This record gives sequence, C-alpha cells and structure tokens, in this order.
Amino acid sequence: MDLNSDLGEGFGQWELGDDEALLGVVTSANVACGYHAGDASIMRRVCEQAAASGVAIGAQVAYNDLAGFGRRFIDAHPDELTADVVYQIGALEAFARLAGSRVRYVKPHGALYNAIVAHEEQAAAVVRAVVEYDRTLPVMGLPGSAWLRLAEDAGLTVVREAFADRAYTPEGTLVSRRLDGAVLHDPDEIAARCVAMARGEPIRDVEGNPLEVRPDSICVHGDTRGAVAIARRVRDALTGAGVELAPFAP
Amino acid sequence: MDLNSDLGEGFGQWELGDDEALLGVVTSANVACGYHAGDASIMRRVCEQAAASGVAIGAQVAYNDLAGFGRRFIDAHPDELTADVVYQIGALEAFARLAGSRVRYVKPHGALYNAIVAHEEQAAAVVRAVVEYDRTLPVMGLPGSAWLRLAEDAGLTVVREAFADRAYTPEGTLVSRRLDGAVLHDPDEIAARCVAMARGEPIRDVEGNPLEVRPDSICVHGDTRGAVAIARRVRDALTGAGVELAPFAP
Amino acid sequence: MDLNSDLGEGFGQWELGDDEALLGVVTSANVACGYHAGDASIMRRVCEQAAASGVAIGAQVAYNDLAGFGRRFIDAHPDELTADVVYQIGALEAFARLAGSRVRYVKPHGALYNAIVAHEEQAAAVVRAVVEYDRTLPVMGLPGSAWLRLAEDAGLTVVREAFADRAYTPEGTLVSRRLDGAVLHDPDEIAARCVAMARGEPIRDVEGNPLEVRPDSICVHGDTRGAVAIARRVRDALTGAGVELAPFAP
Amino acid sequence: MDLNSDLGEGFGQWELGDDEALLGVVTSANVACGYHAGDASIMRRVCEQAAASGVAIGAQVAYNDLAGFGRRFIDAHPDELTADVVYQIGALEAFARLAGSRVRYVKPHGALYNAIVAHEEQAAAVVRAVVEYDRTLPVMGLPGSAWLRLAEDAGLTVVREAFADRAYTPEGTLVSRRLDGAVLHDPDEIAARCVAMARGEPIRDVEGNPLEVRPDSICVHGDTRGAVAIARRVRDALTGAGVELAPFAP
Repeated sequence: MDLNSDLGEGFGQWELGDDEALLGVVTSANVACGYHAGDASIMRRVCEQAAASGVAIGAQVAYNDLAGFGRRFIDAHPDELTADVVYQIGALEAFARLAGSRVRYVKPHGALYNAIVAHEEQAAAVVRAVVEYDRTLPVMGLPGSAWLRLAEDAGLTVVREAFADRAYTPEGTLVSRRLDGAVLHDPDEIAARCVAMARGEPIRDVEGNPLEVRPDSICVHGDTRGAVAIARRVRDALTGAGVELAPFAP
Repeated sequence: MDLNSDLGEGFGQWELGDDEALLGVVTSANVACGYHAGDASIMRRVCEQAAASGVAIGAQVAYNDLAGFGRRFIDAHPDELTADVVYQIGALEAFARLAGSRVRYVKPHGALYNAIVAHEEQAAAVVRAVVEYDRTLPVMGLPGSAWLRLAEDAGLTVVREAFADRAYTPEGTLVSRRLDGAVLHDPDEIAARCVAMARGEPIRDVEGNPLEVRPDSICVHGDTRGAVAIARRVRDALTGAGVELAPFAP
Repeated sequence: MDLNSDLGEGFGQWELGDDEALLGVVTSANVACGYHAGDASIMRRVCEQAAASGVAIGAQVAYNDLAGFGRRFIDAHPDELTADVVYQIGALEAFARLAGSRVRYVKPHGALYNAIVAHEEQAAAVVRAVVEYDRTLPVMGLPGSAWLRLAEDAGLTVVREAFADRAYTPEGTLVSRRLDGAVLHDPDEIAARCVAMARGEPIRDVEGNPLEVRPDSICVHGDTRGAVAIARRVRDALTGAGVELAPFAP
Repeated sequence: MDLNSDLGEGFGQWELGDDEALLGVVTSANVACGYHAGDASIMRRVCEQAAASGVAIGAQVAYNDLAGFGRRFIDAHPDELTADVVYQIGALEAFARLAGSRVRYVKPHGALYNAIVAHEEQAAAVVRAVVEYDRTLPVMGLPGSAWLRLAEDAGLTVVREAFADRAYTPEGTLVSRRLDGAVLHDPDEIAARCVAMARGEPIRDVEGNPLEVRPDSICVHGDTRGAVAIARRVRDALTGAGVELAPFAP
C-alpha cells in the first residue's frame, strides 16, 4: 500500500507542516510546485529529502493563487490550465532529477482537485497536460471523478486514493465537510479503517453499513502536529498488520 | 554566425515586442521563463513557434521580479538564486520538449546579466545551477564577465555575445548607457559592423580605433517596431555578405 | 452625461491602452489598483494626469489576479473579497489625494463585474467594503445587477452605466459576447446611439425595436487604437449635439 | 516609553509570530502592508485588534518581495520606491480608519530598513513618500541613519529606536549580526538594559563600557515563542520599574 501526503507547502519565510517528520511516514510526497505554495528552494530541499528517504516525488499541481493557497476555484481557460500544469511539472522535474529521481505522478491540489471531480473542461485540460508532458506518468485522484475517468480514457495510469480521516457516503463518495462527522478524529478508528482498506476489507460508511473502498493509495495529512501523529499511527498500524508500504510508482 | 534576441516577454494580457517577426530573423531565442516576464501560455506558444522555425530555444533566466521586469538588482542569497535558475530552466524545458525540442542554452536577463559581470557570488550561483541541471548546456554572456570565466572554469561551454547596437570602449567593454553615443541608431552602421564582426574583421571602438570583437553570437533587439526593422536589416546584411546564419547550438 | 473608461491598466514594463489620449475624452477614469493591473507608479501618474485634466478618479477594483488580468472568476470568500476591495480603494486614495483629488466612486472590473451581476454573496461583499470604507462613495455598475440592487439597499448612491458599443436585448440586458452582433463596430452607429441615450431617447435593441436606456454614465473603451478613435467620435457627437459632459461625481 | 514590534507578517494560509500575544505587550504595532508580508484580511484583523487594544498602528513599508520577505536589497528606482511606499501607507490607512484609528507612523522593514541607513537616494525616496502623503506622520528608524537625518531635514518628526536584544558598539551602532555576541539571549540582561535605557541611564556597550542610548521607542521581537516571552519580560520589567508605557504617537 502507498501512503501519500502534501509536502513542501511553505513559501519564502513561511513554513507549513512538518516535512521531515512526514518523510518518515509516507511513501509518496505530493510536492507543491510554486503555484499555491512551495518555492524553488523548498522544492529543491524536499526533493533531496524525499529521494534520500526513498519516497516517490509527485507534482502537486494547482491554480496560480499564492494568496488563496490554491483553495479557491479559478475559472481558468482550459488552454491556460494545461500550460500552467505543464509548467509546474517541468519545474519540479528539474529538482527531482537534481536529486537523482524523477517526477513519478501528478496530483492536483485543493480547489483544482475538487473542481475536476465534476468540471469536465478543466479535468480534460489537466489530463491533456499530462498526456503531452509524459503519457507514462500516473495521475492520482478521487475514484469516480471526471479527472480519473478522462485520464483513463486517454490511456493514463490512474491511482485511486482514499482519505484516512474522511467519512464516506453509502455511494462511496466523501461526506461533505459541511456536515457533522465528515472528518474522523479518533486515531484508533482512523488506523483501523486504513488497515481494513489495505487488506481489501470493507469499512463502515457514514451510516454504519459496510463499504468496499479499494484504494491504490491512502492520503494522510501533515499540516498540524496532531495530523503528523495520526499519520504515524496509521503507518504503524499498517506495518503492524503486515501490510507492506511502498510507493505505487516504481 | 548566430543571432539571438529576447522573446516571450509578455505576461498575461500584456505583450512586449513582436515575437513572430523576430522568429523570422534570429537563430536563437532567449525565452523568458516566468520570473521577469513570460507565463506558461506564452512560453508554450513561443517554444512551438521557435521549434517550427528552426530557432534554438534558450532559457532567459532572471531575478524573481515581475514588477521590475528583472531590471533591478536583487541581493538574493546564492543558494536561492541557484534554485531559482534551476526552476526556470526546468519549466522552460517542459515546453521545449512538448514542441519537440530542448533547452539549448542559458542566458541571464537584465539586472542578473549585469550583476554577474562582476558579482562573483551570484555568478557562481548561476554557474552552479547549470552545472547541476545539465553540464552539457552552453551558457551565453558578456566576454570578460565573471559569469563566463567561472562557467569556463566549471567546464561549461561558453558563448560570447556581442551587441549589434552598442558602442565599445577601447578595452572591448560596452560604453555605459549613461554616456552619449552608447547606443547606435543608424541601421546601416549597425548592419555593417555586424558583418565585420561576423567576418572576424575589426570594428571601430567609441574613439574610432579598430577593435577586434569575435563573438559567437550577436544580440539584436525586438522590443520596438524600429528594433525589429534593424534586426531584419542586420540579418539581410549578413546573409547578403555570405555569412551563414545558424544556431550555435546543435 | 458622464463618459467613463478603464485607465492605468499597464504593469511594470508593460503598457495597455493610451491613457493620455483617453484622458482627453472621458470625464471619469476607472483606475486599476494593482490587483488585475496597475502598479504604484502607474497609479500615481494616472491620478496626477486625471486630476490635472478634471477627470474624476474611480477605483477599478478586481480579483487578485495579475496573470489573468482580473478576467477569471475566483471563488473568493466574501470576507477576503471585502478586505481586498478596501485595500485597493485605500491604496488608490493615497495617490488621488497626492494629486489633490479623491477617489470619487468604485467600479468593479472584469470577472468581478460580471460575477456580481448575479452572485449575491460576492456582490454583498463588495457593497460591504464600500459601506465600511466610505458610505458616501457612489458605485458604478450594470442596471439590474445584484451589485447595484444591494448597494441601493445599503443606502449607497448608484451610477447606472451603459456601454457605447454593446448590443442590448429587448429586456435591456447585454447581448452575450458569444453571440453575433454583440459588439458594435460602426463608429457612426455607436456615436448616434450614445447621443440618443444621453438625450433620453430610445435606442434600437438587437431585434430592432425601441428600447429606453437611461444611463448615468456611458462606458467607452481605450485598449486599442481603434477604440480610442471611437471614444473620441462619441465625445464629439455628444458635445456636437449639445450634451454637456461632466463627471457624475462632484 | 514606547515598545514596538512587527505584526501581521503572515500571508494567506501562512502565519508568522503570535500577533495576539504581542498586542498585549507592545504599545506600537509595525503592521506589514502586503509587500513583504501581510494580506488585506490580515491587515484588517490586526488593525481591529490593535485599535481595540490601544496599540498605535504604524505602516511597516517594504520592498515588493514576498518571496524574499523583504529581506533582500532591491535596487529600486527612487521614484518607484516613493510610489510603492505611498501605496502601502494608503492601503493600511484604509484598514486603520475602518478600525476607528489611523496610521500613526512609518517604519521601513528588513532590507529597506538596512539599506536606508546609508543609501541616500533610497532614504530620500522614502522620506519623500511620507512628506507627500502626510508630513505630520512620524517616522521610525535607527539613530544616525540617513533615513532619520533626511527625514529631520524635511521637517518630519523622527522616532529613534533601540533594540532590546542587540549589542551596541562603542560608537552607538549595532554590532553586526555576523559577529559573536551581536544578539543578546539572556532575558534578565535584556530586561535590565531596557529599564536602563528607559530611565536615561547608560547601558554597557559590547566592550563593557558605559554607553548612553536615549531611544524614543524600544523594538522587541515576536516571531518565535521565546521572543514573545522575552518581550513580556521586558514589559514587566519596565512597568515594574515604574516606567510608563504608551505609544509615542498621540
């Protein structure tokens, strides 16, 4: 099983999350590429640390919005978006190569991630960017999203991710963050459901019924001290249960 | 002989210079990489046009200063500068590859170009970026600069450029723009001296004495309508004199 | 009658439109405030020129999006938007005061202008900004928009604008730019309808039927050489018809 | 005595320092204005909190350099710099007024602060900005700097500041941060010297000899948890010693 998390989300003088701690937990790092966070110096450092830790480097591509941390939908023209995604992958690739590695996958961030669950034009624009850049590059996203569907149609390898700490509807989609119970907080419960998902066993949906979620990767968070502790707990539970952790990307 | 010029120096809604006209004139295009000018969509378009025209693509790397168009010295830390240069080359490389080409050389822009004539630390930082990114990449700059000296010391291929429209001191350096006569305006004079330089013949320095300038590339401008006309005049004069025009880079 | 146009929409090295020519045509200048265009030096210069020409200075507030020139909808949180609008008005006010004038009105730009025709939350956020900043400041916008309705509800003075070169539906709304005939190009026709609007006479809607449009201000464009010529034509026609041109703001 | 500190130095998603804690310590807040840090939402919040706490609001003006946090010298043209400073003061003024207060003083930040100790042209440019904006506005800076000298020449009120935790040379200038002992770390020592300075008593210079420093304001830091604790210690020592703390600005 693969564990992924967002890394390198500082900027200039500002830090966010504990990259070093997370690199001891995850197997794939979604590295910010300068559009919502991350600057060249941070990208360089994170790539070096990830490569040294055997963690796969993924391009966490985003809208061009430092002020909004990429969390605001921007009605970008698809051609602009394609070019913006290519730019970000290319910039990160340079640092990945410097570190003796490569960009191994692409995962959209924040509002872009959410938009292309349903926004066909923007989803197609991001798919096009990956196809044109390197059609062997896997893409990560939400099962059932336009993004993964169009990526698959285009012949890309798709990586379906589950969220360690999010409640699921009976249909297998995420419970909206606006509803109570959308986010799980109990480390034991979170760890247990990750083990279940990794073993191919059903978890409980928000109504308590069994639900099969067969992710290729599990996303953990690292933006707070508590989040890192939960991420570690998930890792320990998985390895304790005999689940082998490794990047999905070779 | 190689003719180079700055291209892709618009941003978003704004345009600067006439890229299409210039691509019919030069053999090497110094493409802005988003730090002083150029955005992803412009970079993509210019790379496609350059590749289609057989014009070599170079990374015109700059300080991170859109507001100042890269024309203000910034006392950046050398490590930051190295990372910033790698970022820019990597981003441009993605578009060059999409267009079926590659980044063929690196030329600093504006205040960075001027700074590393003498600023050893920053010159070394830019050299380090190229060495780490790809030590087979030639670098372009001013003969006699710290930048070219350190690049040569580091084993990089250096491309010495002359300026079509700048007066030279007896020592072979450029006459400061603050002095009268620093910039030539007569198209015939500019064209004639370019032919001389291309043939290895001496030109006249600012005092009227013969001066040998043996450039590997001649820089022409394209930011005004008049500039493009002069650039065309230079090209026509060179080809009319039997000088073969071709990118220095393979 | 008031004639308004966008001014100061360059940035750094880049220019857009012919500010000086426009200042001889319009009576109110919508000055860019640094978010979609305009930098401090441009704002200063435009304010000085406008004040010297007796042209009223308005704050052309926008989303924070230089790369998109404020033409892309951004799903900004209303509180952020309120603060962003206050910031822009405040910055422009400083330059207006330096020039011996003041900010006389607020007009949203581009995608923000279009969004708050119907987006109640964002419209309310911009209204709130003006109310909090200075509730005596008039606001300019599209008749029938949520923006003007909520502004009126909040006790603000509203300035209804018409567009010199846009076709109108029978309902008095603008014909979408995606449809043929949405934009008028004939200078005589444009000038004639501006005279009609200024006199309180009906114009022809897109289907040829009479339509009453009673604007407080008419918007002309200045981003191309042709546009400035049309703007001059409109001004000459209005003054030739005895319409007095003056800023709506005192 | 006045105690000042930098506040509002986050940006978007990123935070820096503990503004709320500091507002319980200082009497004057140097508020970031969006150029090196601070966005509109943060400026709004800090101004509201400062006004509610009776803390004077000052404009902490900087070079336009988010990526460098305003800590890199930029060779900006004096006219640009003047306009940039006016822009920042104007933007902050809007939020200060919304909070029922006003901008009470101007203090340059980081590399600009350091540059105008000696850089006459840039110092004059910042002085000009304040003179043009509001010549009743006091300016804060380093005793002996070109900045304060030129400000005084221009008729501005100058506020001389001392640093709570910096060692002084026998000449009364700051010991360079590159030298050992430049920064004091012992809270008791720091507090004691602040009390001495506030009482008009000599402190010890770096060589142990008595030195008179008669500041109008003492600068404390708040960017780390330890810094806030020291700032509190300074405040407690001052009030314990009967020193009345109040903003220098009315």
